[in-house]
Amino acid sequence: MNTDDSPLISIRPDPEREQRKGVPEVIFGETKEPSDIIEMAEGLLRGSGRAIISRVRPEALAALQTAFQAYTLRVREAARMVVIYRPDYVRRSTGGHVGVISAGTSDIPVADEAALIAEEMGCHVTRIYDVGVAGLHRLMEPLRDLLADGVDAIVVAAGMDGALPSVVAGLVPVPVIGLPTSIGYGMGGKGVAALLSMLQTCAPGLSVVNIDNGVGAGITAALIANRVAQARAR
Amino acid sequence: MNTDDSPLISIRPDPEREQRKGVPEVIFGETKEPSDIIEMAEGLLRGSGRAIISRVRPEALAALQTAFQAYTLRVREAARMVVIYRPDYVRRSTGGHVGVISAGTSDIPVADEAALIAEEMGCHVTRIYDVGVAGLHRLMEPLRDLLADGVDAIVVAAGMDGALPSVVAGLVPVPVIGLPTSIGYGMGGKGVAALLSMLQTCAPGLSVVNIDNGVGAGITAALIANRVAQARAR
Amino acid sequence: MNTDDSPLISIRPDPEREQRKGVPEVIFGETKEPSDIIEMAEGLLRGSGRAIISRVRPEALAALQTAFQAYTLRVREAARMVVIYRPDYVRRSTGGHVGVISAGTSDIPVADEAALIAEEMGCHVTRIYDVGVAGLHRLMEPLRDLLADGVDAIVVAAGMDGALPSVVAGLVPVPVIGLPTSIGYGMGGKGVAALLSMLQTCAPGLSVVNIDNGVGAGITAALIANRVAQARAR
Amino acid sequence: MNTDDSPLISIRPDPEREQRKGVPEVIFGETKEPSDIIEMAEGLLRGSGRAIISRVRPEALAALQTAFQAYTLRVREAARMVVIYRPDYVRRSTGGHVGVISAGTSDIPVADEAALIAEEMGCHVTRIYDVGVAGLHRLMEPLRDLLADGVDAIVVAAGMDGALPSVVAGLVPVPVIGLPTSIGYGMGGKGVAALLSMLQTCAPGLSVVNIDNGVGAGITAALIANRVAQARAR
Amino acid sequence: MNTDDSPLISIRPDPEREQRKGVPEVIFGETKEPSDIIEMAEGLLRGSGRAIISRVRPEALAALQTAFQAYTLRVREAARMVVIYRPDYVRRSTGGHVGVISAGTSDIPVADEAALIAEEMGCHVTRIYDVGVAGLHRLMEPLRDLLADGVDAIVVAAGMDGALPSVVAGLVPVPVIGLPTSIGYGMGGKGVAALLSMLQTCAPGLSVVNIDNGVGAGITAALIANRVAQARAR
Amino acid sequence: MNTDDSPLISIRPDPEREQRKGVPEVIFGETKEPSDIIEMAEGLLRGSGRAIISRVRPEALAALQTAFQAYTLRVREAARMVVIYRPDYVRRSTGGHVGVISAGTSDIPVADEAALIAEEMGCHVTRIYDVGVAGLHRLMEPLRDLLADGVDAIVVAAGMDGALPSVVAGLVPVPVIGLPTSIGYGMGGKGVAALLSMLQTCAPGLSVVNIDNGVGAGITAALIANRVAQARAR
Amino acid sequence: MNTDDSPLISIRPDPEREQRKGVPEVIFGETKEPSDIIEMAEGLLRGSGRAIISRVRPEALAALQTAFQAYTLRVREAARMVVIYRPDYVRRSTGGHVGVISAGTSDIPVADEAALIAEEMGCHVTRIYDVGVAGLHRLMEPLRDLLADGVDAIVVAAGMDGALPSVVAGLVPVPVIGLPTSIGYGMGGKGVAALLSMLQTCAPGLSVVNIDNGVGAGITAALIANRVAQARAR
Amino acid sequence: MNTDDSPLISIRPDPEREQRKGVPEVIFGETKEPSDIIEMAEGLLRGSGRAIISRVRPEALAALQTAFQAYTLRVREAARMVVIYRPDYVRRSTGGHVGVISAGTSDIPVADEAALIAEEMGCHVTRIYDVGVAGLHRLMEPLRDLLADGVDAIVVAAGMDGALPSVVAGLVPVPVIGLPTSIGYGMGGKGVAALLSMLQTCAPGLSVVNIDNGVGAGITAALIANRVAQARAR
Repeated sequence: MNTDDSPLISIRPDPEREQRKGVPEVIFGETKEPSDIIEMAEGLLRGSGRAIISRVRPEALAALQTAFQAYTLRVREAARMVVIYRPDYVRRSTGGHVGVISAGTSDIPVADEAALIAEEMGCHVTRIYDVGVAGLHRLMEPLRDLLADGVDAIVVAAGMDGALPSVVAGLVPVPVIGLPTSIGYGMGGKGVAALLSMLQTCAPGLSVVNIDNGVGAGITAALIANRVAQARAR
Repeated sequence: MNTDDSPLISIRPDPEREQRKGVPEVIFGETKEPSDIIEMAEGLLRGSGRAIISRVRPEALAALQTAFQAYTLRVREAARMVVIYRPDYVRRSTGGHVGVISAGTSDIPVADEAALIAEEMGCHVTRIYDVGVAGLHRLMEPLRDLLADGVDAIVVAAGMDGALPSVVAGLVPVPVIGLPTSIGYGMGGKGVAALLSMLQTCAPGLSVVNIDNGVGAGITAALIANRVAQARAR
Repeated sequence: MNTDDSPLISIRPDPEREQRKGVPEVIFGETKEPSDIIEMAEGLLRGSGRAIISRVRPEALAALQTAFQAYTLRVREAARMVVIYRPDYVRRSTGGHVGVISAGTSDIPVADEAALIAEEMGCHVTRIYDVGVAGLHRLMEPLRDLLADGVDAIVVAAGMDGALPSVVAGLVPVPVIGLPTSIGYGMGGKGVAALLSMLQTCAPGLSVVNIDNGVGAGITAALIANRVAQARAR
Repeated sequence: MNTDDSPLISIRPDPEREQRKGVPEVIFGETKEPSDIIEMAEGLLRGSGRAIISRVRPEALAALQTAFQAYTLRVREAARMVVIYRPDYVRRSTGGHVGVISAGTSDIPVADEAALIAEEMGCHVTRIYDVGVAGLHRLMEPLRDLLADGVDAIVVAAGMDGALPSVVAGLVPVPVIGLPTSIGYGMGGKGVAALLSMLQTCAPGLSVVNIDNGVGAGITAALIANRVAQARAR
Repeated sequence: MNTDDSPLISIRPDPEREQRKGVPEVIFGETKEPSDIIEMAEGLLRGSGRAIISRVRPEALAALQTAFQAYTLRVREAARMVVIYRPDYVRRSTGGHVGVISAGTSDIPVADEAALIAEEMGCHVTRIYDVGVAGLHRLMEPLRDLLADGVDAIVVAAGMDGALPSVVAGLVPVPVIGLPTSIGYGMGGKGVAALLSMLQTCAPGLSVVNIDNGVGAGITAALIANRVAQARAR
Repeated sequence: MNTDDSPLISIRPDPEREQRKGVPEVIFGETKEPSDIIEMAEGLLRGSGRAIISRVRPEALAALQTAFQAYTLRVREAARMVVIYRPDYVRRSTGGHVGVISAGTSDIPVADEAALIAEEMGCHVTRIYDVGVAGLHRLMEPLRDLLADGVDAIVVAAGMDGALPSVVAGLVPVPVIGLPTSIGYGMGGKGVAALLSMLQTCAPGLSVVNIDNGVGAGITAALIANRVAQARAR
Repeated sequence: MNTDDSPLISIRPDPEREQRKGVPEVIFGETKEPSDIIEMAEGLLRGSGRAIISRVRPEALAALQTAFQAYTLRVREAARMVVIYRPDYVRRSTGGHVGVISAGTSDIPVADEAALIAEEMGCHVTRIYDVGVAGLHRLMEPLRDLLADGVDAIVVAAGMDGALPSVVAGLVPVPVIGLPTSIGYGMGGKGVAALLSMLQTCAPGLSVVNIDNGVGAGITAALIANRVAQARAR
Repeated sequence: MNTDDSPLISIRPDPEREQRKGVPEVIFGETKEPSDIIEMAEGLLRGSGRAIISRVRPEALAALQTAFQAYTLRVREAARMVVIYRPDYVRRSTGGHVGVISAGTSDIPVADEAALIAEEMGCHVTRIYDVGVAGLHRLMEPLRDLLADGVDAIVVAAGMDGALPSVVAGLVPVPVIGLPTSIGYGMGGKGVAALLSMLQTCAPGLSVVNIDNGVGAGITAALIANRVAQARAR
């Protein structure tokens, strides 16, 4: 009898994608084995000289630290992100400027994901955290400074009522990316109310990404900022 | 053959309810025939000397104006509410003070429902309308005045992103009743995002009623204000 | 290469909030590390002389008991709440009176959250528990006593069918706060049917908070009661 | 060219169904043309001597009255039901006893559907209408009478919060069929909250049918009552 | 300082309920500590001489077996139900006859819950299990036998597509109670599709209970059967 | 000032699609103006000699009959479909055999959509209509005949409980396409329960299309049947 | 008696908003009376010299054409948008370049809303319409041209399966704004599936707005393009 | 007292089903004890000589390997499937050809389920994996090869945005079965967006199965392919 498996054609990762899109490949660590992450990271290090891994579980972090002792590691534990650099890697600085604002303490890990990927895309990032809706009057000053510093795009992370992105987008003349986080409970919990509230915003210039998609929000903001920076540079 | 209908026991409207609850009966006009509304209004006028009708359709309004020419009518068309008073009726003034704030122009009919029922329950009502989330900084002054005037409870009506009630509840030391309106479209539309965002509020002291339930929000606010006023009066 | 993190501006907790809102800060323990809770509690104790922590996990409870041996601790385990008092702290008594009613045994932890926060806001609290819808006729007497004692606001906690708050609000002349609990299974489970049923209530004077938000319900009730008490005191 | 339609095999209405099931065929009028309803009614009149039509639109009602002048018509307009009897038809009386209770005025059409189909199945039906949750204490007496009269099954119709069926099922020792109606608005509106609340009931002996399914509720109640009556008759 | 807990009024379990409703009290074991279950069981044993516990967890089962060695225990492990009888307890036999049919093997625990509670209410129960929709033609014979044996009510348990209750209700002249089980995956999983399909049934005489509510389905069926049996007995 | 519209590049209909896919273009009439439909139909008639229009509104039907008097029209009014043939058009006959089964009378328009498109794709179509779940035993004979006639694929249309496709797929050895229709009301109405029940089917070999997508179901069935017929023809 | 309405404080439209945000005010016409639209338009014309109205109903269009005969009107009927210019108004040209791509013919009105607002914000707009997912291979060439022309941001409108924005975002190095349209039927209809699919995108650099929010998508794209153009201009 | 269990009639597995349907029985391992799986597998081995088990948990895999040492085992761990063959078993080869395409790495286990069951039904299977929507242009070549090899039906597995099946169905002239996988997060996660997007497809010839139902998709594809192969063989 014949139990051989059927033929398999695998369309391998697209080598030209980072260049075509201007966005680095990000390894999503949550559902992958440490050995798979290491193998994929090695491939990226051979290519671009850098490997970015998101949602790294503790056991994978330990494995990465052991496997890449000869490399430089950048670890932001709260955000569960790790970046590995080949010793000769030099991160470019584009001149783009991204702001990342978060509503509550629990939104920080997701906000930090956005900040870190924007930094890795060469942007200067300013973070303004722990801005509750209750303390809005105290947001005004840092926001004014941010605009004075010529910020190109702002990511606003919020869970629960998701009100902060609408408030910020009502005040600033730059594109705002709403980043709902899975903070919340009961009806509309796990970020659902936050996302819906952002989709229903009355403020112009607010677009959104899915719940907890810090990487996606950071990439969009950095794409905008880098395009502006490129124009400035000419 | 026998086609007689089965026996019917009807538990009539509860005559002691207004007295027991401290809340007037409100006739919900939307799904009733003009003749039914008139009959019910006549009953209430015989009893308490006043009939309040919400969600009055245009044809019913005309019928009411014809039927009750000998009475005083209070008509607030945008809110689709009508109050009919027996000539000898004197509306009591309790000394309670209710604030009603609305986010957008489209929220006014529902906000006005809340304001009118609170007035009919004897409260002094202050309305602050057209407060967009974008114009929050300009809300501060009227809000300060409202508190200085000793407001007892505040209703905040908002559709779309539903952010305003959370913002107000973060600033004031009185109970706030969130009143979501059915303004909104697409995902989370018809007031769903607004309601969910209010349920997920980070601000303490905010409770909510169902979408477009202006009468319910006004009754709750007036119950609170009247209880405070009663204590003040002692 | 440069891997320094981006600049971070943290808008620290709002020191004037408790005074401005008349509501104590509550540390939400569920998603925080014991060390973080202890640090935040120390800050609150330095300030107001009291720290309230909700949703305390067992390991955090042990850590708190060790860390604050020199303080007075009030622990209500079923409700997973802990209050820590500086030895010199004297809880004020406002004269406000709050009732807390619960439908089933499983609703007690959430109901107790509401009761405890209202007590900490200085209210006198009467609890009536284990009132099934089936035993409604036996609720009448304690409810009459509660009204005779001059209760200012009533929280009614219920999961499953969520019918009790509507029944109570149909009988009493004081504001009722519906508190749905996450008790329930299958379609409409986890408190969804209870919340929806309360939002659809036919009874006037019922407003609601989100599922399991005992703290929020208690704060709203206490805000009402304290305002009435303040008026009485004048 | 050939555009003949494909062959069609139609499995005709099941002639033995009424006898097999003990339930009369009901023509659902809402989505049918008057001419189709007349044709189907003629078929049923030829067979069993009676045609029951539910959800009759006004234009169909007029057409039926014209077409069946030689017959006896039973019309219950609010419930939009019509029954046509062949002159020689004698409705059997089974001795089964069904109770139909409704919460609000708006629930009556659906409740009446249940009452009428139970009558057509030969049951004695007692209707108790306009029982608000707020007036529960006044329901006790008629309910006691109903049980004393030996009611076999009770249908309880309710929209909005859907609390009444749970309350009734907590009090009576007979099977209760919860009949949610599409009365309600906003979140949980159109009968959704009512249905979910009934599914989550804490009271034993309550089963439910879909929203506005008055015919289904009446059939189930009559099936039960007729089975009991049959046993009694032996 | 004063940290005494607020006064607590507990409306104790309703001692007359079993007699008033004709339905035994059932202790829901899933969310209760073994010690609580034992205490409640002792109370019931003192009263009626029998304690029924559903959703018993393994650790609770062991504790019950230890605590009640002097009593007779009836354990149906798959259904996670335990019944404890005082030595002198004699279960009455009412003469009512209930059928319980299940679609798949995974539906058996929930179906058995229904069967067992009906037995404890004194009914004779016939179980027909593992009837797939694919094998419908083979259901005919046992169904015919069931009707010949004079079954009074039938519970049909099904998860997944939930088609079986509609099929059975289309064939039999007795009331059918649809019992959706939480078997299923993906869209409409966890019993949602099964419940919705039953609510939408085209077959007359089918009412439903919530997902996995075996106890509720069994009680309703037994209430019907016992009422019929009582009539037969006269 | 300049108000010229921005440049517009329109990627015109794909001329090779019918040939590439083996599926004719279908004009969706519901949301189109009669003049637009006529223009698009003329284009198709010039190309393939045939134009198929689905969801034709009455006013469009009249316009088409006027505009295409010189052509042969095939009109199936209940299904709201029209096919226009150039006089010289000869519909090919592929030898594929498709069965179309429908549960209720209200499902026929959608079932007929499936039948008609399969016929236009050259298949022989057998329709078996009005098969209620209650009359399953009478479905057996026509189903046996269908299989004996060598049917290649079967479409089963059902609304309400959506049980029929699962029943059929449990009996036949050919692929079944479940076609949920928007018949149904209340919870799970508008075809939702039917679709979910089909997705949860226990029967192997059943795949589904979206609610009311008769055209899609017919195309899939015809693609299968034509492929089989092609193989037979070799 | 006193029926005077309560005092009303209206926080008028924010005169500095257009300048602060860089986004023109847009009058949402759908829910407004023609007279209200005219009044609001007059206000805007006095201020900025231009009034933009979206979702204009036919009767309002006629009223606007009559009222503003002395002005220049730009009407794009399919998109239901009207722009009114004061004779001396000169629309600025920013040098920003926005692309607008739509999947199907039915998506054009919403796509045109986005195009028109971007034009009014001074952008050069290129529209590529009627790109089906089936014809993806033919999208390549116009997309390459668009990038060669230096497009700064791309709006991609799609209903039904919502697949096109993900496909485009996978190919281009500029920010893409996904614009779901309410085209679709059955499960996931009215744009829900399209929006969810965009939120779940695998392609980097895609953010979204709510269903049918063409104005919001166009504003976000123009904000990006104008910021880039401003940098270029320096 | 009598606690005997009620009589139980078990309608045993349908021995003629595999022959009647042309589809092998598959044991769903996820919710079964290893001992139950072994017993069921022994039954199937005695009958057809082969046992297929899906969703095998690690502990069950070990137990199967121990229990069936004398048999040939085919284990595909990622897909969690095991096939056990009696030593004399010869798998038939039908000549049918099925293609299985997957979008991302995480979709492979579910795609492999489909591939393996199709192989066990005698088909030749070609697998094309890791086709991202971003790399669509590189899919063209293997797809062209697949069609040239005479593929009869194609399964396309995708999670997240679920766009790939629509893209493939737009290009090929064979039936496509969309297989949504539970990959995805936030709003529309766990495969919901993928399933809805497939149901809303614009491409003709795409039908779907439920989320993660790899076995169902593979069976449908193989039923089609085998029917074609059978015709070819004649």
